[in-house]
Amino acid sequence: MSEKIVISIDAMGGDNAPDAIIEGVALSSKKFPKASFIIYGNEEKCRNSLDKYAKNLKKCEFIHAEDIVSSDDKPSQVIRNKKTSMWQAVNAVKTGKADAVVSAGNTGALMAISKLALRTLQKIHRPAICTIMPTIKGRVVALDLGANVECGPENLVEFAIMGENFARVCLGIDKPSVGLLNIGSEDMKGKEELHKASDILKTSFPDVNFYGFVEADNIAEGLTDVVVTDGFTGNVALKSIEGTAKLVLKLTKKAFLGSIWGIIMGLLSKPIFRKVKKTMDPRLYNGAMFLGLNGLSVKSHGGADGFAFSIAVNNAIKSVKGDLNEKIKEEINGFNLDELVQGDK
Amino acid sequence: MSEKIVISIDAMGGDNAPDAIIEGVALSSKKFPKASFIIYGNEEKCRNSLDKYAKNLKKCEFIHAEDIVSSDDKPSQVIRNKKTSMWQAVNAVKTGKADAVVSAGNTGALMAISKLALRTLQKIHRPAICTIMPTIKGRVVALDLGANVECGPENLVEFAIMGENFARVCLGIDKPSVGLLNIGSEDMKGKEELHKASDILKTSFPDVNFYGFVEADNIAEGLTDVVVTDGFTGNVALKSIEGTAKLVLKLTKKAFLGSIWGIIMGLLSKPIFRKVKKTMDPRLYNGAMFLGLNGLSVKSHGGADGFAFSIAVNNAIKSVKGDLNEKIKEEINGFNLDELVQGDK
Repeated sequence: MSEKIVISIDAMGGDNAPDAIIEGVALSSKKFPKASFIIYGNEEKCRNSLDKYAKNLKKCEFIHAEDIVSSDDKPSQVIRNKKTSMWQAVNAVKTGKADAVVSAGNTGALMAISKLALRTLQKIHRPAICTIMPTIKGRVVALDLGANVECGPENLVEFAIMGENFARVCLGIDKPSVGLLNIGSEDMKGKEELHKASDILKTSFPDVNFYGFVEADNIAEGLTDVVVTDGFTGNVALKSIEGTAKLVLKLTKKAFLGSIWGIIMGLLSKPIFRKVKKTMDPRLYNGAMFLGLNGLSVKSHGGADGFAFSIAVNNAIKSVKGDLNEKIKEEINGFNLDELVQGDK
Repeated sequence: MSEKIVISIDAMGGDNAPDAIIEGVALSSKKFPKASFIIYGNEEKCRNSLDKYAKNLKKCEFIHAEDIVSSDDKPSQVIRNKKTSMWQAVNAVKTGKADAVVSAGNTGALMAISKLALRTLQKIHRPAICTIMPTIKGRVVALDLGANVECGPENLVEFAIMGENFARVCLGIDKPSVGLLNIGSEDMKGKEELHKASDILKTSFPDVNFYGFVEADNIAEGLTDVVVTDGFTGNVALKSIEGTAKLVLKLTKKAFLGSIWGIIMGLLSKPIFRKVKKTMDPRLYNGAMFLGLNGLSVKSHGGADGFAFSIAVNNAIKSVKGDLNEKIKEEINGFNLDELVQGDK
């Protein structure tokens, strides 16, 4: 475990920057008093919030950054501008000043800068985007959510190892079960690369608690602690889930607003609906982690408020605290996945 | 439009066969008094229900079939046994005795028998599974939901044409908008085959109301009337949607049951929740149609009750009435998709 945890923060990314970002750091600092922070941002714009939360920001260093990555900047541009708060925050991880970076800015830009500056972990072919989602039973870790449109078996196996360790470190699950997303639980169903990945996980990684194939309705059921898939499918599943949750809540609201009786019942039931909304509150699941790089890079939702941003920061802290990257390296180290994939052909 | 509509029915498929099946046919017969039915099943097992609903089954012929396809029969077995009610019901479409077949039995078996007996429509490369789902605005037609794990641009373009005509005929939408499921609405995002399919739809099919790329959260929002995707992604989206709808309803129930106040409010709000459940009622969306074959084949959910089965039968009747296959053929006829795909390379 790292002795001292340092998180670098891009204060200028996201719709509510820099105020929500600095508020979020203050909340995390209160929760994890041993963690330190380096905040990169425009000094003038950050001044108010830094003063406002000064009490909780004692273990914070602020570094002025001249430029800002905007939401429509192209990745190819942003990787060249070293004056942005995002570039500098990521670079702090590269130089070892910080252990992880958190930004609510432009996703493509953060991914590009992180990949370029931090490079993929030894033995890992490609990084993946990983997040936590609510289920009937609790929480599930899902990856990849969009970094890799097409994936070979070696990628899927690596995602399984990375996701398993993420669940252990961030959700505190001792032996997380891992499912591979398919369109049927039978062994012969679905795509070639899924069968190969499943075979490799079963035969070469006995320490992984591999469940086998799961279907998309099993995600919300919480059948496994981790669900592994390619970035295209993962993104579709995530957005289907978000869209449907909104649909059901909207239809419920519409039904209650459709009659005077309904409006009265709705008002009287408000505390109960608040409970439902709280379980599904997307702020509780804020923070997508780029796994598989030399250093942790966390993308907060662009619309995050202070509380949501602090959740992303907390996950970064937990991952550093739990030595996530070291654990991934240890687990993957003894294997040559290229050989395993070839050998199975 | 066909003069006389005949639907053949496999009475022995599904958990509630044959009673729910025969009840469903009776309901559809009442709604569409001009339609006739040929019911294939075990005479002894069907006798009770046939007698019970005799009043509404006047335009029904019953034909005894000796065997039954069970839920774990392999497709390779069932295509050889011509004595099953499923085989005979599909064969009635092949020989022209019926215009469409509806079964609640084993999906893989129905797909295999239908493909073998009916063969793909001229010019169509591969059939697709198509269904209707609820949205905030109303309904959406989605395909493919699992017939084709991998799809080329020619398949996706054909699915667009088939889905568009299905929406016109079954949902009564004059000029249905068609979206192609992707992980970003920008032109450069996602997979190669999606870009090619999008280009072909834009340039060669000006009569199709093609919206462009949509994302998975747009499905429930009802952004387009039709959503086109490959069978793997479609299956994942469908099951993510089903799983999440269940999750939200379960969490709501749990919250209401969590306190005495909640239980009272829940009881008083019952009629309102019934309204929500009614909009989302999966029975209203029962029936997956195999599109792209010479003859229509409809798979009802295996757990369907009489009402749900009648919805699948009604969609079959509407599709025959609207000359769905003729319309698909007309629209696709002037094009050589292989050339269009090649030409774009």
